[in-house]
Amino acid sequence: MTLDPIAVVGAGAVGAYYGARLAQHGADVHFYTRSDAAAIREHGLRVQSFAGDFDLKPVQVYDDTAKMPPARLIIVALKATARRDYVRLVRPIVRDDSIIVCLQNGLGNEEIFADAFGADRVLGAIAYTCINRIGPGQITHTAHGKLRIGEFASRRTTRAQQLADLWRSAQVPADAVEDLRRFRWHKLVWNIPFNGWGAALDLHTAALLAMPTGIQLVRDTMQEVIDAAAALGMTFEPNIIDDQIAKTLEMAAYHSSMQLDRQHRRPMEIDAIFGEPIRQAEAAGVKVPLIRMIERLLRTVGGE
Amino acid sequence: MTLDPIAVVGAGAVGAYYGARLAQHGADVHFYTRSDAAAIREHGLRVQSFAGDFDLKPVQVYDDTAKMPPARLIIVALKATARRDYVRLVRPIVRDDSIIVCLQNGLGNEEIFADAFGADRVLGAIAYTCINRIGPGQITHTAHGKLRIGEFASRRTTRAQQLADLWRSAQVPADAVEDLRRFRWHKLVWNIPFNGWGAALDLHTAALLAMPTGIQLVRDTMQEVIDAAAALGMTFEPNIIDDQIAKTLEMAAYHSSMQLDRQHRRPMEIDAIFGEPIRQAEAAGVKVPLIRMIERLLRTVGGE
Repeated sequence: MTLDPIAVVGAGAVGAYYGARLAQHGADVHFYTRSDAAAIREHGLRVQSFAGDFDLKPVQVYDDTAKMPPARLIIVALKATARRDYVRLVRPIVRDDSIIVCLQNGLGNEEIFADAFGADRVLGAIAYTCINRIGPGQITHTAHGKLRIGEFASRRTTRAQQLADLWRSAQVPADAVEDLRRFRWHKLVWNIPFNGWGAALDLHTAALLAMPTGIQLVRDTMQEVIDAAAALGMTFEPNIIDDQIAKTLEMAAYHSSMQLDRQHRRPMEIDAIFGEPIRQAEAAGVKVPLIRMIERLLRTVGGE
Repeated sequence: MTLDPIAVVGAGAVGAYYGARLAQHGADVHFYTRSDAAAIREHGLRVQSFAGDFDLKPVQVYDDTAKMPPARLIIVALKATARRDYVRLVRPIVRDDSIIVCLQNGLGNEEIFADAFGADRVLGAIAYTCINRIGPGQITHTAHGKLRIGEFASRRTTRAQQLADLWRSAQVPADAVEDLRRFRWHKLVWNIPFNGWGAALDLHTAALLAMPTGIQLVRDTMQEVIDAAAALGMTFEPNIIDDQIAKTLEMAAYHSSMQLDRQHRRPMEIDAIFGEPIRQAEAAGVKVPLIRMIERLLRTVGGE
């Protein structure tokens, strides 16, 4: 089964890694990245991964999507801060049979592509991974890596399973799921406290969990996310908080992507990870004062 | 008029500066500092001040208050994090006619000396100054410097005026005030947002005021302090918030002492500046959610 040609729109850590794995295993992958195209064209992609290092060279890389071949599979790995550019960037590579997979964080991304190109072509993928871009075309992947893939507008899993199989054949663990939205919220249970407080207070995961007050702050914040999800009809495993804290302690001093964005004075994905969940929670009548406070502090620290 | 001998207990930036000014102008001043005594004995005190640089050498300095002469005037400039050591440190130098001046931040310091040695000997002094310790015995004083001095247990001003005169004769602007408590709260209107959010978010004053969200956060926090003070019977000038923000913008990128404490992983004065004001406000029936949040975040960041 092939979904070639494949376009990866956005070659930060996540786009570069998951796209490069497909290319490494024979897929016809074309990367778009505005900032790193020249460096990747010259030096290729260099992936240091606990699952196996590899270099990809030459790389089909472009600094303009208008120069790319229209694609059967479009993997969107743009940062959510680029939301206003999504449609403009993707439109040139959409063809009649394109499917669009949002390999992104937070809420509200799939909706933009559904509105512009039709809900039935849109899927979402959630990456569970510790991965960082350490330079143009240079990626380190230190732990985890699973993808969960689901349809945006239905509970069907045929296409999601096709995509999962494609990545599985390329050394990437991947599952198809029926309820993408539930898994997006499930991931927020971790992202909201650890990206949020981590970036606002400039604390890595181990520092956030070093004091009893910090542990309680993380627990209370997770509970707000869980309560909001429940009001929206989604439930999670009963021990989710203990479980996520235990897994995070195993990660030692992990700097979330948002903390790194703060430290490097890059835009933070505030709206996708905080603004949109707050809007959905409050529309369902749930107050989320801790999440609102995080959003306020992130904007104070210098976000959008 | 003399109040010799004078003991300065605690020779951080504030104690060293205000004590050294008295010594420079002829008073018999004895300094206690556990950490810096050896360095100050060898090198003296070096003060870089916009009001005039000076060196003090030799310095009468001790690493143990039991070795000091009992004093007529005891100036306590210990960090409020040393609260449990106050009485033990001061007891050896108290004589029948000693007066004790708390030259410290926050609330709850005078009470400890009043309980131990009698309320009638206790005064408080509030320093309005930009001053930092840059090394053992090395102080920089970049702006301001006024003291306000008042009795702890009465509205009399005779002794406060004596002390103000003493410092005035030593190049330090100083006023006696009737209502020490009101001025302690007045200073909290600035300290709580700028020390608090500044240390929690690791932002200097200009960064805190760089975004509209940050300005509103500071304003809302000041309003909580003002409302708490009002419930406790204290009122301030109506334009206090605008005025303090304008003055802070003039200070440019000022790192509060608490932000520096955080950056250098030193204990922060959380209880004096946040814990005790919260207790007083809530005892008066006022909710202070922002101040509570700051306290919670500071303890998460690694405070007491």
